[in-house]
Amino acid sequence: MINFDEDQYRKDLTAQVNAIAEGKKVADEITKQGFDNIFFVGVGGTYAMQMNFVTLAKQYTKIPVYLEQAGELVLVGNPHLTEKSLVITGSKSGDTKEIIAAEKWLKEKNVRIAAMVMSKDSAVGQLCDWRIPLQVFKGVEFEYLSMYGIFYGLLADNGDFPQFNEFYDQIKKNMVEGIINTQKKFDDRAESIASKYYKTDYQMWIGGGELWGEVYLYTMCILEEMQWLKTKAVSSSEFFHGTLELVDKDLPVFLVKSVGKYRPLDERVEKFLKKENNNLTVFDIKDYMIDGFNDEFKPIISPIISTIILNGRLSKHLEAHSGHSLDMRRYYRQFKY
Amino acid sequence: MINFDEDQYRKDLTAQVNAIAEGKKVADEITKQGFDNIFFVGVGGTYAMQMNFVTLAKQYTKIPVYLEQAGELVLVGNPHLTEKSLVITGSKSGDTKEIIAAEKWLKEKNVRIAAMVMSKDSAVGQLCDWRIPLQVFKGVEFEYLSMYGIFYGLLADNGDFPQFNEFYDQIKKNMVEGIINTQKKFDDRAESIASKYYKTDYQMWIGGGELWGEVYLYTMCILEEMQWLKTKAVSSSEFFHGTLELVDKDLPVFLVKSVGKYRPLDERVEKFLKKENNNLTVFDIKDYMIDGFNDEFKPIISPIISTIILNGRLSKHLEAHSGHSLDMRRYYRQFKY
Repeated sequence: MINFDEDQYRKDLTAQVNAIAEGKKVADEITKQGFDNIFFVGVGGTYAMQMNFVTLAKQYTKIPVYLEQAGELVLVGNPHLTEKSLVITGSKSGDTKEIIAAEKWLKEKNVRIAAMVMSKDSAVGQLCDWRIPLQVFKGVEFEYLSMYGIFYGLLADNGDFPQFNEFYDQIKKNMVEGIINTQKKFDDRAESIASKYYKTDYQMWIGGGELWGEVYLYTMCILEEMQWLKTKAVSSSEFFHGTLELVDKDLPVFLVKSVGKYRPLDERVEKFLKKENNNLTVFDIKDYMIDGFNDEFKPIISPIISTIILNGRLSKHLEAHSGHSLDMRRYYRQFKY
Repeated sequence: MINFDEDQYRKDLTAQVNAIAEGKKVADEITKQGFDNIFFVGVGGTYAMQMNFVTLAKQYTKIPVYLEQAGELVLVGNPHLTEKSLVITGSKSGDTKEIIAAEKWLKEKNVRIAAMVMSKDSAVGQLCDWRIPLQVFKGVEFEYLSMYGIFYGLLADNGDFPQFNEFYDQIKKNMVEGIINTQKKFDDRAESIASKYYKTDYQMWIGGGELWGEVYLYTMCILEEMQWLKTKAVSSSEFFHGTLELVDKDLPVFLVKSVGKYRPLDERVEKFLKKENNNLTVFDIKDYMIDGFNDEFKPIISPIISTIILNGRLSKHLEAHSGHSLDMRRYYRQFKY
């Protein structure tokens, strides 16, 4: 497969899977200290990734779980954020401006911070109380995995996720090879989709529930940021309240179908689009689900499946066709603004 | 002004302003009964309108305030939603499918519902415990005003908004004529903007804080739904994390600048865009703010200012230029799907 170093990827994934145990230890320590609520604080891709946990929290725990934009939090605060709160934040690079500012603001308020970051020596790493280990810079699957130890660990410690060990066992047994195999399985389709759509003026992307963050991330942080392709992302629950009117027979439309309780919303969108549009691409995460996981764990790992096929494979083929490197930026980190 | 019946509008607005007292009575009754938290439940335009209240709640109250997509809530529920919760929902028409389904689901769980709706005889009106009066179908300003009595009334009753009477006095004294005058003041600019942009292939819209819901609504429910114009809406806090890469000198970009604590985020975006883009339109809500309100009330009424200039005036001029009626739909309410 193009742009895929299988040996290195296997090594990285294995390290990230092993690091879940470290995240669980952080969770145990925080649980011992006690906390009233969890604040996810992010920006851009990290914020989008966090959406998944905030959404799934509704199905597992009564612990209040909030999501805040780092840049907004420091301006306004939140009445539920106290010294008894736990903040989970992250920055792959460790130097994201908004996250550093948020951490400094939080430390002044004596709020404890756990941060997903590559290095404890980075600015973000220095400012946090606990590092949540991230092993690799590229690939959102590593970010999701990095969260599993701390987030589902906290839930387990609270009695909300007694299946933690079973879940982790299935990850250890099946995740690495499963993820690699799914990418191989999807790769031909990625090539065919990329060859058709790498030059589009506009793409409409739809998805929802525990995959809404993925759709939001893929359109904004990959297609827009890395390929300069114009997109609109709309959730399956909102699609029928405005954006549907743009649909005609030819519009390039992409639907990511989720596998959990929100799936009926995606199915309603799909039914409509199959009637009204002839340029529809459906990514049914069910078709790419990896083996060896209990049904109840499938929605939890579904954003990993989504990101490995879209970000992992489709992007690479878009890059190959467009000749537009995924690393090229006009502005981001090119100069100060 | 085109498509503006000043006498009727004045009458409608006055009625809506008077109805705030009715909303306050509902708030007093609910307060007497007691409640643990507030759930806003909406879809599409109503959901977008509700975002404003959820955002501003952070600055005024410790009452937990949640926002839920109606279509998602009925599939998954929310662990914090109990018989002691208050749901605030709404449907202008009174027959929005997702809202009716949510109300039925909520009634089975014995959750109390206050619904913004034109008529108590509508399906949504029949299913709610309290009607929050909405006087007019068209115009999001009426929706915002309809919420003031119940929402700020609940906050006032909880000791979080002791300035309620002063706020309401200023509304009664200044809102109706202020809103009319602002629309007159903006109308020439609306015409000039509409004549330039009514045929664009794509528009990028940016805004944030208490105006994010407005930007979300105007792009999705007006430009996309009513003019079939493609858009991307992105919040000021997220703009620098992906979408900025689409910006070149010629891209049509629109920025709605807010007036409260989030304004620095908009200013950062503006500074960047003024350097990198020559096709920028800035709507600074400060320039169109109506007289007679304390500074602290300006962020609260800012979405009304935003909607009257954008939805109220700009849309009418877009319609005049495009010849595309704001009432024309391909699909919505045209057939079942």
